[in-house]
Amino acid sequence: MDLSAVQKKQQAFIEARGWSEFQTPKNLVMALMVEAAELQEIFQWMTPEASAQVKNDPETLTHVGEEVADVFLYLLHLCNQLDIDLEAAVKDKMQKNAIKYPLNGAQGEP
Amino acid sequence: MDLSAVQKKQQAFIEARGWSEFQTPKNLVMALMVEAAELQEIFQWMTPEASAQVKNDPETLTHVGEEVADVFLYLLHLCNQLDIDLEAAVKDKMQKNAIKYPLNGAQGEP
Amino acid sequence: MDLSAVQKKQQAFIEARGWSEFQTPKNLVMALMVEAAELQEIFQWMTPEASAQVKNDPETLTHVGEEVADVFLYLLHLCNQLDIDLEAAVKDKMQKNAIKYPLNGAQGEP
Amino acid sequence: MDLSAVQKKQQAFIEARGWSEFQTPKNLVMALMVEAAELQEIFQWMTPEASAQVKNDPETLTHVGEEVADVFLYLLHLCNQLDIDLEAAVKDKMQKNAIKYPLNGAQGEP
Repeated sequence: MDLSAVQKKQQAFIEARGWSEFQTPKNLVMALMVEAAELQEIFQWMTPEASAQVKNDPETLTHVGEEVADVFLYLLHLCNQLDIDLEAAVKDKMQKNAIKYPLNGAQGEP
Repeated sequence: MDLSAVQKKQQAFIEARGWSEFQTPKNLVMALMVEAAELQEIFQWMTPEASAQVKNDPETLTHVGEEVADVFLYLLHLCNQLDIDLEAAVKDKMQKNAIKYPLNGAQGEP
Repeated sequence: MDLSAVQKKQQAFIEARGWSEFQTPKNLVMALMVEAAELQEIFQWMTPEASAQVKNDPETLTHVGEEVADVFLYLLHLCNQLDIDLEAAVKDKMQKNAIKYPLNGAQGEP
Repeated sequence: MDLSAVQKKQQAFIEARGWSEFQTPKNLVMALMVEAAELQEIFQWMTPEASAQVKNDPETLTHVGEEVADVFLYLLHLCNQLDIDLEAAVKDKMQKNAIKYPLNGAQGEP
C-alpha cells in the first residue's frame, strides 16, 4: 500500500470539508478509539468460535472491513499530523517485540 | 508498505511463541482497543495545543510511535485472520466517505 | 443509591429477555467499553472549554446521562456476576489512591 | 452507597493535589475509557468460561475490583462536573430500556 498517497488523499478530503481545525492529535486518538469500539461492538456478544466464522459471512465481513478502514484512516492521519513514519514505527516495534518476547523465554499468554 | 510481508512476519512471530490459539477475531479486537487506549493515555491530560506540540518532543513521539505500531499490528493481524484485504477495504471506505460527506453538503463537524 | 436493588432489577430484566447466557465477564467488559466509547463520541470534537459548557445544554446533557447510565449498568452487572461489592471496592481504591498520591509528593498530572 | 459523599471526598482529593484544571468533561471521558481498557485487558485472552471463573480467583478479583472502582470514580466525577444526578439518570435509562426492548419483542442478542 502506498501510505503516502492515502495520507495525501485523506488530507485533501479533510481540508476540502473545512475540518482541519478539529484534527489535533488529542481529538484524533479519541476518534480512533470510537472507531475501534464500533469494530469491537460487532464481536461483543459472539463466542470466540463464532467470531472466527465471520470469515464466511460476507455481510458482517463488509461491516468489519469498514470499521477496520476507519481505524486505519485515523491512525494514518494521526501519523501525518505528527510526522510519524508508520512503516518505520512498525519495523522498530517488531524488533522491540522480538527482544521483549524471546523465543526461549516463558511463553504463556501473548 | 508491503502489508503482506508484515503479515507473514507477524504470523510467524505468533506461531513461534505458541500464541495461535489466542488469536480469535474477538480477542484481537479486544487487544486492539487496549492498545488504542494506551495511545489515548499519552494525550488524555494534554490541551489540544499541547497534543499538537508532541511533534517536537522526540521522547513522547517515540512512545506514540510504539503504540501506533501496536494498534496497526493488531489491525493487520485481524485482517489476516479474516481474509480482509486492508488496502481494498480502505479504498472502498474512502469512496463511501466521499458519498456520505459530499463537498457541497452541510459541513459542521467531521 | 440502593445498588443491590438496581442489580436485582437489572438481573430480572436480562433474565426475562433470555440474555443470561451472553453475560460472561468477558462480554460485559466489552459492552462496557463500547458504551464508554459512545460517551466519548459526544465529546471527541469539542474543545475542553466547550465540553465544560455541556452543563448548560439540556439536550446534550440528556444524551450524556444516557451513556453514563449505560456504563454504570454494565459496571454494576459485572460486579453482580463476579460477586464484587462495588461500594467496598471503591472505598478500598480511594484508600490506595491516597497512599499512591501523597499530599506532599510531586504533583504534576493527575 | 452515598454517592454524594463519595463525590465530595473525590472532589476534595483532586483539589488538594492541584488537579482541578485537568478535570474537563472531555479529559474525564478519556480517562474513563483508559480505565475501562485496563479492566478489559484483564479479560482479553481469557475464554468466556475462564472469565466467569475469575469469581474464584481472589488475586485477579482484587485487580478487577480496582479497575472497576477507577471506572466508577471517573464516572461519578464526570457527573459531578456536569451536575448529572447519576441515580436519576440510571432510573431514567432503565425505563427507556424497558420500552426499547419490550418483553414480547424479538429477543436475539442483548
